[in-house]
This record gives sequence, structure tokens and C-alpha cells, in this order.
Amino acid sequence: MSRTVYVNGEFLPEEDAKISVFDRGFLFADAAYEVFPVLDGGIVDADAHLARLARSLDELDFPAHYTPDEYLPVLKTLVRNNKLHEGLIYMQVTRGAQDRSFNFPKNADPTVVMFTQQDTIADDPVAKTGITVITVPDIRWQRCDIKTVALLPACLAKAEASRRGADDAWLVDDEGFITEGSSNNAYIITKDNKVVTRHLSKAILHGITRVSVLSLISQTNLELEERPFTIEEANGAIEAFSTSASAFVMPVVSINGNKIADGKPGPHAMVLRKLCLEAARQSAAETPALSPRHRIKKRSS
Amino acid sequence: MSRTVYVNGEFLPEEDAKISVFDRGFLFADAAYEVFPVLDGGIVDADAHLARLARSLDELDFPAHYTPDEYLPVLKTLVRNNKLHEGLIYMQVTRGAQDRSFNFPKNADPTVVMFTQQDTIADDPVAKTGITVITVPDIRWQRCDIKTVALLPACLAKAEASRRGADDAWLVDDEGFITEGSSNNAYIITKDNKVVTRHLSKAILHGITRVSVLSLISQTNLELEERPFTIEEANGAIEAFSTSASAFVMPVVSINGNKIADGKPGPHAMVLRKLCLEAARQSAAETPALSPRHRIKKRSS
Repeated sequence: MSRTVYVNGEFLPEEDAKISVFDRGFLFADAAYEVFPVLDGGIVDADAHLARLARSLDELDFPAHYTPDEYLPVLKTLVRNNKLHEGLIYMQVTRGAQDRSFNFPKNADPTVVMFTQQDTIADDPVAKTGITVITVPDIRWQRCDIKTVALLPACLAKAEASRRGADDAWLVDDEGFITEGSSNNAYIITKDNKVVTRHLSKAILHGITRVSVLSLISQTNLELEERPFTIEEANGAIEAFSTSASAFVMPVVSINGNKIADGKPGPHAMVLRKLCLEAARQSAAETPALSPRHRIKKRSS
Repeated sequence: MSRTVYVNGEFLPEEDAKISVFDRGFLFADAAYEVFPVLDGGIVDADAHLARLARSLDELDFPAHYTPDEYLPVLKTLVRNNKLHEGLIYMQVTRGAQDRSFNFPKNADPTVVMFTQQDTIADDPVAKTGITVITVPDIRWQRCDIKTVALLPACLAKAEASRRGADDAWLVDDEGFITEGSSNNAYIITKDNKVVTRHLSKAILHGITRVSVLSLISQTNLELEERPFTIEEANGAIEAFSTSASAFVMPVVSINGNKIADGKPGPHAMVLRKLCLEAARQSAAETPALSPRHRIKKRSS
């Protein structure tokens, strides 16, 4: 069955979900986006994602009157229309369509697109075996804190990983430090039980799941250290993992072919994954989108 | 009157020229493009632009069987359909539409979009007074030699120039050297009659107009020096200019509010502009697109 996709006020069958070739999202990557996890028919961290989208648009000097949080009812309607029990909502806002010119248009209205993707997140079988990563140079622009659709370097990194038989790529800056994964934040756990992840800056995305996981560390016997780490340090780690809205906590079991510890998902990562999923389910329950009937029906199936 | 736009094999009124919201050009900036100048109803440097597009696609690992030079007849048809005497043709090729996933799709066909823009290039009144530029940090990715649509940093630079009352922005790398303009290559002429422009590397676009202008220097009393230059050196220059497919040679008369020499277009830049336009007209005549009747009609009007 075809999905229902939201495009500028209309709910359309996905085959009809189109935008002008003059849209600045298409011509200039002049657009920001968010990916909202959906669990149990509710939206996870809805407010945080909408706030980050507002911040991205603000950094890109979108018109100030443009406020993403007005779109929460649309997100919910889209989940209902697509009977989405578990998966993702993708939302993109562009600076609108106008005849091609680099400078910002004076009168264009932003374009808003949303669609859903059904996915198995909580019981993702991949989390049970973990993923393998390679490292590639981080060649992205210098504002990776803004969640824009200029994602070509991330696509190239992911494709390179695929070519080299790995699941994902971690990006390495000019000084040899890992910034983050191609579409996720990167972490290692050191022998002395410290969770090490790069500090916030313009070099990495300020992950919403990162915030959640960092706050959950206090419930474990781990300590947090926000600082850059190298591939060598990662190779000597007792565990590694990544976090993202689409996978929550994902164990990393090898880097560039070198196993992390015994090459199996580490117990700390699995505990953090469990805690993170619990927090996410709680957040989803606070922003229900599917009707109760559909939420229950699906759960008991 | 509405333009005719080319989208994947169809010639459509611009209002109907649309692409899927799942197009990777829209979601990931996973696309390359070219801008072809049109003079006297003919296409300037058509082969060079198509070859550069092929190179961009190759660098981005597009399917090898995909050959842009097959599109020359389409470019010509589009010029004819739009009765374009002078202006630009924009051509964009994306990795196609598929449900959103960073990794390259296995079966998607590339999306090809082309449209025209009428413009006064040869007699552009702006060239008579020259343009003002500001400098901003070059925050782009590390493969600016590939002509991709991940142009958001260029848009931000152009908008910043506009806010500061200037016409364009020149980009400055981490070491204080100018790389190029927001959408053009950058040049200064030193007191000892040397044309200085940054050497080719992954840090700048390998401009087709740059090739033309560099080859024309031998017809003047100027010498060429391909190397990085600083803002300070530009401030002490006797002339400055930029080159692009959409403006050929454009005199730059001030940088960050500091006049270059007397703040008027320099004689050398104007000579290079004239020579460049002559070469472009000759190239256009070798790739005529408008019918002879239309080419003459427009010239005598």
C-alpha cells in the first residue's frame, strides 16, 4: 500500500508527492531536516526534535516567523494516516521555490515535506550482533551542528563502508580524532569504565539520543568523558557504540576489521540500549499519535 | 510566458516541472550540475561543461554507463523551445529517487533536470561599474572540485554579502588565503602585471571560464601566477576580477569596503572580458541551438 506523504499542507499518495525542480532544497541543499522515532504509535522526543529543527532554521536565517512546533499536529496526523506503529517520521523544511539564484529569495514560502518509514527499531536484530565500522576522513563542511540536507559526504562515507564490507563509517578529522559516525554519534568505553564521546562543537551533530544516553550514564557504574578520541584508542576500548534517532544505541563490534574486545556487543552498550529504549517508550507515550485501538491492536499481534 | 523545462525525458511547462520528494537530489544533495552559457542562440563550451559533468558524476561513483554527452541534443532542443538567445542552461543530474537511505540505491535511475534562464551577459551593465565583494571564512567541504548541489555554504556567503551591502563574497581558507568566490574563481593583478589566481586543487572549482581566461593571458602583456593569495595582497592589487560561466570576466572594484586602485573596473580586466566574450561567441557559433532565423532576428532587434 502506498504511504501518505505530507507536502505543503496536502496529504498525498507517495507517487504524487512532488516538489518543484526550482525548490531550493533540490537546487542548493538549502534545507534542514529531522528524523523522529516512533515507538508504540507515539512520537519520541517530539519537542526536542522540533526545537532542534527551529534552531537549524534559525542558524540558516530562515524567516523568524517560521515555527516548526506548529507542525506537531501534522506529524501526529501522518502517523495516524499511515498506521505507523514503529519506525520514523522524516521532516524537511526548505527555503522554498524560486527561479535559481544563490541569494536568499525575498518572497518564497518555505516548503515542508514529511513522510513515514516503517522500521523495526526496538527489536532490531542487528543490535543483537552489533555493527562493523570503517574509518574515513571527515571531509564535511564546518557547520555539522546544523542538521542540513547537504548530506552527500555522509552518503559517500556510507557507500565506502558498504564497498569495504562494513555496516557504517566513522569520520576522522584532520588531527586524527573521530568526530562522529556518518549519521550518528560515536562512543567508546575505556578499560576504566569511562564512556568517551566527542564534546559538542560545530564539528558534530548535537544528537537528541546523545542527550538521552548521556543522562542515563548516571544510572550505571560508568563515568562520562566528553573529549575527542583516536582510532588507536578505539581499538583498545572494551566497548564501542553509536547513537541515533533511528537506532537508539547500536553496539559497534569492529573498527577497520579490528575486533573491539571479543567482537560481540558489550554488556554496557546493551544496558544503555535498554535504558534508552525505556526512556524512549516513556517519551512516546507522552506524545501518542495512533489511536489507542491501533496502538493496542498492534502490540498484541 | 512559462518556460519549458526538461525533466527525465519530458518537456514540461515550468509549473509542472516536478520531482519526487524521495529524489536523492532533494534529500541528500546527491547530485551534480552544470551551468552552460548561451550567446547568440548557441551553447558556449558545451563539450567542456558536459565533460566536467561526467567527471563530477564519476567522482561521485554514479553508474559508469551514464554519459552526459548524450544530452547535447536535449540542451539544444531546450534552447529552441524557449527561444533563448542569451542566458544560461542549468542541468542537474541526481542519483534518482528511492525510499530514504544514505547508501547508494541499487536500482534507481538518475534524475535529469534542465531549465533555461534568460539573462543579459555580454552587455551586462554591472560589468561597466564592477562588483564589490566581502570576504567570509570558507567553511565548505573538502571536495569543492566536484560541482555538486551541496551549495548551502555558497548561499550563506552570498546572503552575508547582501546583508553587508556587497555584491558577492570571496572565501578565505583556514590559513588566510582566498580560495575562490561564492560561485566563481577569484583573481588579482599585481603591480608587476601578474595575474594571480589560486592553483587547481580539491579546494576550488576547476572553472571552464578559468581555462579560457588563462589561455587568453598570452594575448596580453600580463603574466600568469597560479598560487594562493591573501586579502592583504588583494588590497594592494592594481585590479581584481572573478570569472564564471554566468558572468565571464567580472571586474571587482572593492574588497571589504577597500577600493581596488581607483575603485573602477581595471583596463586589464576589461580587455580579458572582451577577449573572453569573443572566444565564447566563437564557441557558441560552433554549437548553434536556435534556428538561424531566430538568431538573426534577435540580433537585429
